[in-house]
Amino acid sequence: MPRFTPPLRDLAFVLDDVLNADQHLAALPACKDISSADLQSITEEAGRFAAKEILPLNQVAHREGCTWHDGQVRTPTGFPAAYAQFKELGWPSLCAPVEAGGQGLPRLAFSLLAEMLSSCSHAFGMYACINHCASACLKHSASPELQQRWLPRLATGEVIASMCMTEPQAGSDIGLVLTRAQAHDDGSYRLQGSKIFASGAEQDLSDNNMHLVLARLPDAPPGSRGLSLFLVPKLLEDGTRNTVFCDGIEHKMGLHGSATCALRFEQAVGWLVGAPHRGLAAMFPMMNEARLFTGLQALGLSEQALQNALDYAQERRQGRAPGSSDTSLLIAHADVQRMLLAQKAWTEGARVFTHWTALLIDVAEHHPDAVLRERTAATVGLLTPIIKGFLAENAQQSLSLALQVFGGHGYVEETGIEQLVRDARVLTLYEGTTGIQAQDLLLRKVLPDQAQQLNVLISEMHEWLAGADPKHLHGWETSLPETLALLQSLTQMLLEQQDTMAALQASTPYLRIAGHAVLAYLWARSTYAASPQAAQSSIWHQGKLDTATYYRTQLLPEILHQAAALRALPTHTPVIVE
Amino acid sequence: MPRFTPPLRDLAFVLDDVLNADQHLAALPACKDISSADLQSITEEAGRFAAKEILPLNQVAHREGCTWHDGQVRTPTGFPAAYAQFKELGWPSLCAPVEAGGQGLPRLAFSLLAEMLSSCSHAFGMYACINHCASACLKHSASPELQQRWLPRLATGEVIASMCMTEPQAGSDIGLVLTRAQAHDDGSYRLQGSKIFASGAEQDLSDNNMHLVLARLPDAPPGSRGLSLFLVPKLLEDGTRNTVFCDGIEHKMGLHGSATCALRFEQAVGWLVGAPHRGLAAMFPMMNEARLFTGLQALGLSEQALQNALDYAQERRQGRAPGSSDTSLLIAHADVQRMLLAQKAWTEGARVFTHWTALLIDVAEHHPDAVLRERTAATVGLLTPIIKGFLAENAQQSLSLALQVFGGHGYVEETGIEQLVRDARVLTLYEGTTGIQAQDLLLRKVLPDQAQQLNVLISEMHEWLAGADPKHLHGWETSLPETLALLQSLTQMLLEQQDTMAALQASTPYLRIAGHAVLAYLWARSTYAASPQAAQSSIWHQGKLDTATYYRTQLLPEILHQAAALRALPTHTPVIVE
Repeated sequence: MPRFTPPLRDLAFVLDDVLNADQHLAALPACKDISSADLQSITEEAGRFAAKEILPLNQVAHREGCTWHDGQVRTPTGFPAAYAQFKELGWPSLCAPVEAGGQGLPRLAFSLLAEMLSSCSHAFGMYACINHCASACLKHSASPELQQRWLPRLATGEVIASMCMTEPQAGSDIGLVLTRAQAHDDGSYRLQGSKIFASGAEQDLSDNNMHLVLARLPDAPPGSRGLSLFLVPKLLEDGTRNTVFCDGIEHKMGLHGSATCALRFEQAVGWLVGAPHRGLAAMFPMMNEARLFTGLQALGLSEQALQNALDYAQERRQGRAPGSSDTSLLIAHADVQRMLLAQKAWTEGARVFTHWTALLIDVAEHHPDAVLRERTAATVGLLTPIIKGFLAENAQQSLSLALQVFGGHGYVEETGIEQLVRDARVLTLYEGTTGIQAQDLLLRKVLPDQAQQLNVLISEMHEWLAGADPKHLHGWETSLPETLALLQSLTQMLLEQQDTMAALQASTPYLRIAGHAVLAYLWARSTYAASPQAAQSSIWHQGKLDTATYYRTQLLPEILHQAAALRALPTHTPVIVE
Repeated sequence: MPRFTPPLRDLAFVLDDVLNADQHLAALPACKDISSADLQSITEEAGRFAAKEILPLNQVAHREGCTWHDGQVRTPTGFPAAYAQFKELGWPSLCAPVEAGGQGLPRLAFSLLAEMLSSCSHAFGMYACINHCASACLKHSASPELQQRWLPRLATGEVIASMCMTEPQAGSDIGLVLTRAQAHDDGSYRLQGSKIFASGAEQDLSDNNMHLVLARLPDAPPGSRGLSLFLVPKLLEDGTRNTVFCDGIEHKMGLHGSATCALRFEQAVGWLVGAPHRGLAAMFPMMNEARLFTGLQALGLSEQALQNALDYAQERRQGRAPGSSDTSLLIAHADVQRMLLAQKAWTEGARVFTHWTALLIDVAEHHPDAVLRERTAATVGLLTPIIKGFLAENAQQSLSLALQVFGGHGYVEETGIEQLVRDARVLTLYEGTTGIQAQDLLLRKVLPDQAQQLNVLISEMHEWLAGADPKHLHGWETSLPETLALLQSLTQMLLEQQDTMAALQASTPYLRIAGHAVLAYLWARSTYAASPQAAQSSIWHQGKLDTATYYRTQLLPEILHQAAALRALPTHTPVIVE
């Protein structure tokens, strides 16, 4: 069985040495009592629970999958018991508001929990973390009364939320949704229609499901501006069964333990969340959380794969490395070092990226300075499609390299590594494909405000760099400004073009470059944090510097490729025929 | 069910317009009567057979897989009947020597057949094509008597060959093989030991198997120089059962229809192929054919995926492209165009690359000029690790993009696209991982002869370019020389370093750059061949130019990334710790 050891050392390094998380939290009245030790103990507890209770279920879940019979879904062996324990231990309430019975911990705590769970079982993590995303939606968009009724149940985990957007004809283009809703005398609504790809929308971990459903009111304008959001529980508050039915589950390439449901609403009772026809805006906080969660899944899956690839490279002997008189460990070979360093660079980079963003969310929510709150929220808005679009793609590379370290044995199910590759393949597809993220970044976040928000972020990066002692920067003193300058010059070029078609073409390479710019900044900060102890011969910190150098010299130059590609984009619509 | 239409138009373009295959064959006495029409009819027949008889079995094979019971392997439903038909139609004898009952057609014919079969079923193609690889081995290495006994059976397909190299402790490092062989009085040998990862080494398509087995004679020196090659049939010539047993098959990520067998040799009877202790050299013609075949599998799988992604993009409507008043087809979106063009660039490029190399093999084997034969054989030796290492990696990208075009639906088994991704994942692992190919290229083929052979190839490319009218080159007049100059300058740098460790580190980025150099040359030739008709408004040829431009401007710049990475390789052994 693949192993998982919570990466406590790297997490402590990221939170304490790179991000100074406790100092940032201390500035937030709602979180001021959260110490570094508190964060560490949350991580330790989450890691212990995930490694002990969840990891052993993961391969079984891959083999068994979920089963559907007559409207009921059975999750894999052990999932219901593990979820009961998860509830029992209070994990669903971690970041829920105190007034809803939650523990009111910072968003960062969820980020740490989600990393651990995703490392141990992508599928279990889907059920366990969705309530966090749904709570964000209700807190932002639902009436106080609806919040009062449902937030506490999300916090206890007695109900499991689901996001019901997709229909067979409406995927990336949510404006094509056909599900209809009609007002009822008592202030509730009746929903009629079908949804697909609703993760965990029917399951046997909790008695109740709470669907958040996009549907159309009778007077709705066409397209995505005519969608409204509804809360549709499986069991109504009096315990009666609502008329929403699960008609089947998908057989997928991976993520077998997570039930991907087709739902049918037959005049199902629901309540409006947010204003009529403003469903997309009402849903967005959930979608954003789901996108950030995808980044954490990318991180978690990459970490498990990396740990096992590293073990294998340290156990298995094949071939003779130069200078060796006997058969060498795999890790002695340059090509295996390359594959391990690339995995470390993507994975550890993703760790700083996701938890840094979690901390920004806390600042955006809780900082006393309203201007800073607003500015930070805009930064989070900018970073969200990058986390989703960039980290999900990087995870494909990272996991594929982990499998490659195992050679032919990586292709055999038994090793467990192929499951991680298959599970992770969904990351670039759900919650908006990579192409959708790229468009969101360039056409909705960067170009409309003339890159103002982007430039704020870049200025902050320059500011950090200006305050750093160059002797601890190990090459970043030139690589970081070069990377940021490239991003700014391409942004300027696209702003000047004022051409939507050109921007659409440019969006995917642009996303890659923007992602690298953020990662370069965070690897520069990691380098800076590791350098003093590396200078005192700490092997662990030397390893961090070597990984940073690998990222800087071997992976970051992808921006040269992407920039050349972006600058040479065709000016006409290409002919594509067989 | 995914569809497959034999890409006859593109094949005719490649063979007739780009490669002038018939002219090259006309210079070879053994092939001089093969006309362009002959090649076309082989392609048509192979394509028809594959699409009609093999394609319908492919999804079933993925679901059912092979089963093992008590030493017997059952292949998926329909495989035995299809193989019977394959034999009946004479396909196994296509390129077998006439004196062994074969049709003696050029190697190019096999290349065309293998592409078609691989497009329709990677798994079936494994059983169907292995005899070609084994024949190459026997023709090169076996005694005339052994050839006489076994080549005809390989040509009829009544026996299916297998390559038995890997043991649990001996993967990439074949020198660790423990299987032993002892001479017997009658000139035969007795083999004792175990092998794993032997594709098709037990099956129910043919009564007999012919294993080519690496083992160690009693007086063998240690390491790979102590290996000898043996031919070990399942049924001896008198019909009695040899003592070789299949102990099980692997459960793999994909390629379920191909039985990956564990074999046990219990004093099994075998015959020496080639000289004692020269087993690796004796096996190499088979391994080289298997590596070239892997390139054809990369091509075939990418083609099927591309066809289905293109269909989907032309059927499915989502979102509104700029300037459109209604919901657009997927193909109208810039990001989908990007994904389709990248697939076309990789796939069509691989087609020229693999069939061009097949033609070179024919020249190397049959040309009357011995100097040219030798030089061409050396070129094939140089191209073999590039085909294996570069095309197998490109296929991962291409297939992943095909899945991505389907969005969430690509992740669902039903669509059939996830099978192709899973099947193809083995391509970078078997027959030598990508890392092994990279080492073979740089440390065995390029550096030892001071890049002499590489420079011959590059000179030929320059020569072609010098003879081409620039008006039909569409940018290649600068891009190709730049690419070749980059490859030469990096090669020069590595030659001057004279540092094995540095060369090992550099080998993977070097492989990518070398691969692009070859592909750039072949896309330049494709551009040149398509340009005149594109100028006369042929849409198909315009599409070819657009794909070439996409490759040149969007994919080829990967060399900027790889070159920067290669130049910045670390000078010390990195610390890699958790």
